Amino acid sequence: MSETNSIINTGLRGVTVASTKISHVDSDASKLIYRGYLITDLAKNTTYEELVHLLLFEKLPSQAQLKILSQRLASERAIPETLIAALKTRPKTALPMDVLQAAIAMLANHDPDAAKLTKDNTEDIAVKLVAKIPTIVAAWDRIRNGMEPVPPDTNLNHAANFLYMLTGEKPEDQTARDFDICLVLHAEHSFNASTFAAREVASTRAHMYAAVSAAVGSLSGELHGGANSRVMEMLITIDSIDAIENYVNHALDSGGLIMGLGHAVYKNGDPRALILAPMSKQLGERIHNTKWYELSTVLEEKTKAAFKARKGIDIYPNVDFYSASVYYSMGIPIDLFTPVFAISRIAGWTAHVIEEQFAGAAPKPALYRPSSAYVGDYCGPDECAFVPMDQR
Amino acid sequence: MSETNSIINTGLRGVTVASTKISHVDSDASKLIYRGYLITDLAKNTTYEELVHLLLFEKLPSQAQLKILSQRLASERAIPETLIAALKTRPKTALPMDVLQAAIAMLANHDPDAAKLTKDNTEDIAVKLVAKIPTIVAAWDRIRNGMEPVPPDTNLNHAANFLYMLTGEKPEDQTARDFDICLVLHAEHSFNASTFAAREVASTRAHMYAAVSAAVGSLSGELHGGANSRVMEMLITIDSIDAIENYVNHALDSGGLIMGLGHAVYKNGDPRALILAPMSKQLGERIHNTKWYELSTVLEEKTKAAFKARKGIDIYPNVDFYSASVYYSMGIPIDLFTPVFAISRIAGWTAHVIEEQFAGAAPKPALYRPSSAYVGDYCGPDECAFVPMDQR
Repeated sequence: MSETNSIINTGLRGVTVASTKISHVDSDASKLIYRGYLITDLAKNTTYEELVHLLLFEKLPSQAQLKILSQRLASERAIPETLIAALKTRPKTALPMDVLQAAIAMLANHDPDAAKLTKDNTEDIAVKLVAKIPTIVAAWDRIRNGMEPVPPDTNLNHAANFLYMLTGEKPEDQTARDFDICLVLHAEHSFNASTFAAREVASTRAHMYAAVSAAVGSLSGELHGGANSRVMEMLITIDSIDAIENYVNHALDSGGLIMGLGHAVYKNGDPRALILAPMSKQLGERIHNTKWYELSTVLEEKTKAAFKARKGIDIYPNVDFYSASVYYSMGIPIDLFTPVFAISRIAGWTAHVIEEQFAGAAPKPALYRPSSAYVGDYCGPDECAFVPMDQR
Repeated sequence: MSETNSIINTGLRGVTVASTKISHVDSDASKLIYRGYLITDLAKNTTYEELVHLLLFEKLPSQAQLKILSQRLASERAIPETLIAALKTRPKTALPMDVLQAAIAMLANHDPDAAKLTKDNTEDIAVKLVAKIPTIVAAWDRIRNGMEPVPPDTNLNHAANFLYMLTGEKPEDQTARDFDICLVLHAEHSFNASTFAAREVASTRAHMYAAVSAAVGSLSGELHGGANSRVMEMLITIDSIDAIENYVNHALDSGGLIMGLGHAVYKNGDPRALILAPMSKQLGERIHNTKWYELSTVLEEKTKAAFKARKGIDIYPNVDFYSASVYYSMGIPIDLFTPVFAISRIAGWTAHVIEEQFAGAAPKPALYRPSSAYVGDYCGPDECAFVPMDQR
């Protein structure tokens, strides 16, 4: 394919594709709102289970509603034995996001109602996917390390159970709560690429599993879900506070960026980072290793100062910057950071699929079918006359 | 989620999201152009292998180039034994499109270079996917019917080999050529929903497998890929020419449509249908069963007349209308019609992923990140004050 300047691709920046009641990213005020509520309030006060209720069913649950949803989620955590058998056929080097994308599509095979496109059934599948995705991620990590998957423990809440299935050990209460908050913080972020992929697939009246599998594929791209893994790899590369100044200057001299600092959306800082930074600090203190927090905080300072000095602009950490040291300190393998993102974001994806397929007055959604501009100039402005094989 | 009129969703109709050199759908002139060439010329004169060269490498191949590509495709047809083992774990009731979506994501597990985002490597993966998708579809059909997959035969061309793997018998030459033409006709159609899904996922710098798996998910929706299956189901329901008049009147009285007649894009008829109609006739004559062709042609006439009489508009058959009877007459199971669509469209999807990731002057594509309008009114125009659990 010839390199050409004539291909344009705006990435739909600034194009409003739909209205939504699910979330609002207020980039000027640095506010993130899930169904009316500020993320700062939700992170402080709710569990992930409560948040799932809010996103899927539009309301913070009453105590009774929360109990019902929590029990449903716990009872749906197990994945079919034959799905585990399928995972065991996979090469141990398989990328966890690829395995997850496939496993979610395979979950449909076990659901006789997969393609039943009613709102109730689609909500049921949403609950199943929220429940089962952590089990798939943990099972794959065990299998690739030559161990049997740890069955879910219905006595643990959603966050604690994932860490338990991953490590085989019940996490400390505060660590489980920290992870719970991380799940709340990453659960939803409007029409980002993976959510848009889910809605796009759902718009054809494909089922929830197909849409969510596609979203996982979109999240697997390094421009989308890979950022906090790369923050951690960067911290490991830098390794010592003494090396930071040089690292920052070198990156900026060569026109690069510092991963996790700056956000395409929030102009005045990401509200989620303000919650994650102290969490990283306290978590480091509890495990007696504050190295990654300290590196992060000095890197943030030095990068901020360098951007201010060189370009006169203020930059801030985004959600990926401190979640890197948080997940690493919890013992989560770096290449599971993006699957962990999916474990949280499934709440947003499923809420968006439900909205795409069932909200509004129209009985059916309008299939996404954008236009493109044909700029093929293979035979000038005209069509090509067909050239028989012997004349090519 | 409350029903509301405030959710709008335009489906991106009329929004130009990118320029492309791959294909042009000229809706007024009823022309479909692949890289400069008219579909009518290509269907008459080229094989699917030639077409893959045109779509992926921008040129109709010379004899030498075609030989090289054909050999590469043939040598890449086999799928890993452990992927077949994974397919054997699947419930036999699994929907073929769900199995295909998962299997394509799993193919990445076997490719150590899956995530190597160079143009050469991405083109290599495109060739592998074109080669392997028919093998997956045929293998799954054999497995669900309790049979062993038929290994690909490198002495057969792409089209003939698929029919051979599906049935275990080498097809007649004319049937193989008819299927070859069907593959040419369905290979590409600009920014339809599945292609857009592939491009959307690729825009995050996810790899080709992730993007194509997502496209399969999008195609699985009944508004997109399911149409020719439903045409066939309709023909089977109608069953006799005598029943057509009533069927058409009943459908139109109740505000319905006749599947396969009318196209959202072509105003004056789909050029592909003009090739498929005589193919359906001749294929029926060869197998001594013209029933489905005859039903189709009378249904077309009666529906045309009814639309003209009632609404004063001309409608035409689209690509799905006669491909239904063609595939059915070839012995392809109805629920494989959409996977067969994927077997062809993989050429277009992969060409679009390559264009999305590597065309143009910019080193990286712009991630698709559209905007949305937040219309949440949970607490009026203001944010909600957080309500503690005991007050809900």
